[in-house]
Amino acid sequence: MKLIRFGNYGQEKPGIITTEGLWLDVSAFGEDYTESFFDNDGLKRLSVWLQDNHDNCPILDQGIRLGSPIGRPSKIICIGLNYVDHARESNMAVPQEPIVFFKSTTALVGPNDALVIPRGSEKTDWEVELGVVIGRKASYITKEEALDYVAGYVLHTDYSERAFQLERGGQWVKGKSCDTFAPVGPWLATKEEIADVNSLRLILTVNGKTMQDGNTSNLIFDVPYIVSYLSEFMTLLPGDLISTGTPAGVGLGFNPPIYIKPGDVIEASIHGLGTNRQVAQAWQPA
Amino acid sequence: MKLIRFGNYGQEKPGIITTEGLWLDVSAFGEDYTESFFDNDGLKRLSVWLQDNHDNCPILDQGIRLGSPIGRPSKIICIGLNYVDHARESNMAVPQEPIVFFKSTTALVGPNDALVIPRGSEKTDWEVELGVVIGRKASYITKEEALDYVAGYVLHTDYSERAFQLERGGQWVKGKSCDTFAPVGPWLATKEEIADVNSLRLILTVNGKTMQDGNTSNLIFDVPYIVSYLSEFMTLLPGDLISTGTPAGVGLGFNPPIYIKPGDVIEASIHGLGTNRQVAQAWQPA
Repeated sequence: MKLIRFGNYGQEKPGIITTEGLWLDVSAFGEDYTESFFDNDGLKRLSVWLQDNHDNCPILDQGIRLGSPIGRPSKIICIGLNYVDHARESNMAVPQEPIVFFKSTTALVGPNDALVIPRGSEKTDWEVELGVVIGRKASYITKEEALDYVAGYVLHTDYSERAFQLERGGQWVKGKSCDTFAPVGPWLATKEEIADVNSLRLILTVNGKTMQDGNTSNLIFDVPYIVSYLSEFMTLLPGDLISTGTPAGVGLGFNPPIYIKPGDVIEASIHGLGTNRQVAQAWQPA
Repeated sequence: MKLIRFGNYGQEKPGIITTEGLWLDVSAFGEDYTESFFDNDGLKRLSVWLQDNHDNCPILDQGIRLGSPIGRPSKIICIGLNYVDHARESNMAVPQEPIVFFKSTTALVGPNDALVIPRGSEKTDWEVELGVVIGRKASYITKEEALDYVAGYVLHTDYSERAFQLERGGQWVKGKSCDTFAPVGPWLATKEEIADVNSLRLILTVNGKTMQDGNTSNLIFDVPYIVSYLSEFMTLLPGDLISTGTPAGVGLGFNPPIYIKPGDVIEASIHGLGTNRQVAQAWQPA
């Protein structure tokens, strides 16, 4: 199944994309795609409900705004430097264990919403990433069982302010958490839609020029390992988003570095997970 | 006002502590102390409601379990090395800007719940901290206006696994996020209850021996500064918890270090914010 959420920011309703490519409004199912949906076997119940109700679901105009395909999760967990080529371009050591940081969930937006360059930012950068959505509460799980705890996958562009992240003292969260820094979607592909999550091509372009072109086969720590590893340190909740790291080609890696300017168009895609598109704009007072 | 939440874990109900020290069940008010409560002027509405309903609220037996006085927030943000003496005992530089890291919200428990030493942990440590609860959505606010965005204050013992935090690669979140690592409460004191938040004594004892005895007057970055500073990097939501750092006296600072063993009793208090108490226990499979 492919899940979408549509409508105005903060008021999104649930939908699906059919195998024929139609967008259906499934708000009659009565649940948003949040923690309680995943926790209470929502994917299976929605699938059963659709058998009876599919033909009565309104078809959506595909010009409508998409939100993140998951509601605000309890946490967004990111893995740093998880591709060898990206660690190298960042002038950082290849990690011996996953590097883990959080991103404020207030950064979450729809896949095609504007990217707002934060006030005072001169080093806003892009990172295309495979996102993993947790389906069941997970604590101390093995890597062999890890995929049983996964609901599906999403495309996530992990925007990062490099000065905030690296030049403002200490931990990375400061450069990862600005509003609009986590466009997610267009859809959540449930697990069975993706034949091999460890073999997905990821591409990101800026103003039409390819900047990142990687493959999850080059992940240093793969998806089952990451899910298991994280569950040693914290309880993962249904609906939580884990972003698995980015391949080479971020702006920081160029000499001199290239950062995002107002008007830039950033497009990212992952095979099977669709394409997103943000137009960058300068921060404005509310 | 002093807010409490009581009852079984995950099913807590809202209460208050009266000026006479009674614990009242205010579930008839119909709202838990979560983001939407604070966002919709809940403190003021509850106060008005109590004028009419105070005498009809059931009085609670003070043997009942207390939960965290706030429901699960969108984020728990911690400030690192925010007391000079603690930076020194940690052999770390006094920060030029606040060090910011997140703690998984799944770590949140009641003030007197057991501390579970995580599987494989040998370096579980204590940190008594003043917690700030956000009352209104805050983005790019000045330090002069910061307290207008604060709902109140809580006692938070920020448990930390030093090996997970410092020896397992990269960022600190791994050592801060284990289940039970964030006992909060006993109560939330609304802002007007605390005459001067920058002059509160904090004490922590282990098995009756005083290990930490500090004062928020020694904060490197004070509460208004921290709230304003964070709002430059992320949107703060109502109900969010900011933990402001710990004074000297953590286990890591001793030579040799002292870490928590099963059976240890940790008690912390902050003037005006009450006392909590955790008994440490070894992790057991569920």
